[in-house]
Amino acid sequence: MKLGEFELISLLSKTLKNKRNGIKVGIGDDTAVFELNGTLGLLTCDALVEGVHFLRNWKSLTPDFFYYLGRKLVSISVSDVASMGGAPLYSLITLGIPDWMEVEELKELYEGVNSALEEYDFSLIGGDTVKSPNFFLDLSLLGTSNKNRVMLRSKAKPGDLVGVTGTLGDSRAGLEQLLRGKVEDTYLVERFLNPEARLKEGVKALEIGVLCSTDVSDGFVFNLYTIAESSKVRIDLNSSEIPVSENLEKFAGDGALQYALYGGEDYELIITFPEEKKEKLENLGFKTVGTVSEGEGVFLDDKFLEKKGYDHFKGGV
Amino acid sequence: MKLGEFELISLLSKTLKNKRNGIKVGIGDDTAVFELNGTLGLLTCDALVEGVHFLRNWKSLTPDFFYYLGRKLVSISVSDVASMGGAPLYSLITLGIPDWMEVEELKELYEGVNSALEEYDFSLIGGDTVKSPNFFLDLSLLGTSNKNRVMLRSKAKPGDLVGVTGTLGDSRAGLEQLLRGKVEDTYLVERFLNPEARLKEGVKALEIGVLCSTDVSDGFVFNLYTIAESSKVRIDLNSSEIPVSENLEKFAGDGALQYALYGGEDYELIITFPEEKKEKLENLGFKTVGTVSEGEGVFLDDKFLEKKGYDHFKGGV
Repeated sequence: MKLGEFELISLLSKTLKNKRNGIKVGIGDDTAVFELNGTLGLLTCDALVEGVHFLRNWKSLTPDFFYYLGRKLVSISVSDVASMGGAPLYSLITLGIPDWMEVEELKELYEGVNSALEEYDFSLIGGDTVKSPNFFLDLSLLGTSNKNRVMLRSKAKPGDLVGVTGTLGDSRAGLEQLLRGKVEDTYLVERFLNPEARLKEGVKALEIGVLCSTDVSDGFVFNLYTIAESSKVRIDLNSSEIPVSENLEKFAGDGALQYALYGGEDYELIITFPEEKKEKLENLGFKTVGTVSEGEGVFLDDKFLEKKGYDHFKGGV
Repeated sequence: MKLGEFELISLLSKTLKNKRNGIKVGIGDDTAVFELNGTLGLLTCDALVEGVHFLRNWKSLTPDFFYYLGRKLVSISVSDVASMGGAPLYSLITLGIPDWMEVEELKELYEGVNSALEEYDFSLIGGDTVKSPNFFLDLSLLGTSNKNRVMLRSKAKPGDLVGVTGTLGDSRAGLEQLLRGKVEDTYLVERFLNPEARLKEGVKALEIGVLCSTDVSDGFVFNLYTIAESSKVRIDLNSSEIPVSENLEKFAGDGALQYALYGGEDYELIITFPEEKKEKLENLGFKTVGTVSEGEGVFLDDKFLEKKGYDHFKGGV
């Protein structure tokens, strides 16, 4: 199939029939949002597939591979909920288990899942376990917003500033080491295999009154485009402000900024916010990296940036 | 991996940490059940995997293969919710799409999903679409119980009668035709590819006051064992009452009863109920096929039946 992932989602949305009245946000944001008995519920799911999101031979490259895989499965869905400003409640896991998998590996995976559940403070309450020629994992997550409000990609306003947590591009640099079959910088590899969901930052940003957010899953520029397009605004970045780790600078040299812009799977939070909230948000760990104005597109130091990202569907691992 | 599916689920449950107070039913029934703002929520997911639950070449055996696959994906999760007496609300679908799949096939699949959503009256509100070497589909479903009560496997009582909807064993007979590569009886094949979830019957049984139910996913005897074991009771079946279709009798001759007992994937509802509810339940389409008493095990005409079923994990398609 030649269609990219986003074209597929678009095809899906067109044929879908969203019938219920309670739906607040359907397909097209980080989670779906619905109202149930006066509470806002959030639903999202994320899959990891052998040969696409990870390779089986990585278990020989990193001792805690299955543990990390379990943690990552949880963290990437929690990141979706975090970018809405919500908190996770209950989850289900589907595992497609191949013949080659050892019981010890499965136990290690569960330990990773459990450690992430404890950290983000929610429960796994069910799932489906099936045989599969190819290993896959799928987690679905029900969350809720205590404030009865969520942050959306479509809420950026001209005059807003753009903020982001953490550092960008590390994950891609970690992935490349795994693909080369040689782990040189374990920090970067762990940033790819064991990303941290910015749950606390998302919940607090909502409390502070932030309206617009998404997470960096497909790449910083790509995810900024999802904000720019759904909010119908232009976003300008200042290259000197883009947060890059020392490890990435060492790994990528002059190329570090490219990793930060297009790398993907960082699971940092992007927000836009009015100037008066800047101090509070910077105290929370958000770095101000750009501005929102009328217009369209994403620009770096006034130079137009192409909408491209890390599309598993087109690229593979 | 040599473990069977049920040993895997058991391994999973042991390492799981169910932390939240709101959990009413965790792993071990047809859906998980939790309380949220005074409402009972149900969560379940079911996956279908190429090479395990279906084969790619079936698309040449039956013209509506992808349409049916989409319908089946929805129906099997709805069946779980039905067996709790609940109704579906919102769902997510994860699709793992291989290179060989055509856009037209994907569209047909969506049409099948949509037709089932309309029939069971709920919405698909999101999901994940990923590339995968092996085709898989996973649906997760959030449901609710209007009566603030659910039917459980563990609620059978000595003195109860055992009831079941529809006919049993058709699905397995349909599967065998597909595996042989020759469709002789389209009714049986459609019973396998396009099962009907007994949603209305489940909701009404709960209203009538039925406490104990499950669906026939792994095989009638196997699923009766899940009731017998979790309720700590003995179940006796009367062979002359087991409902078998004319098509199955034609297909399997004297073997029809074996198909009905062990076939699997019928998605009929099993309930147990006190005698005084018999008439109401028979009017609803439940046939009385046995009795519950003190003890353990499942028996047919006083002969002990082995606990065996249709375990994809051990058997494959």
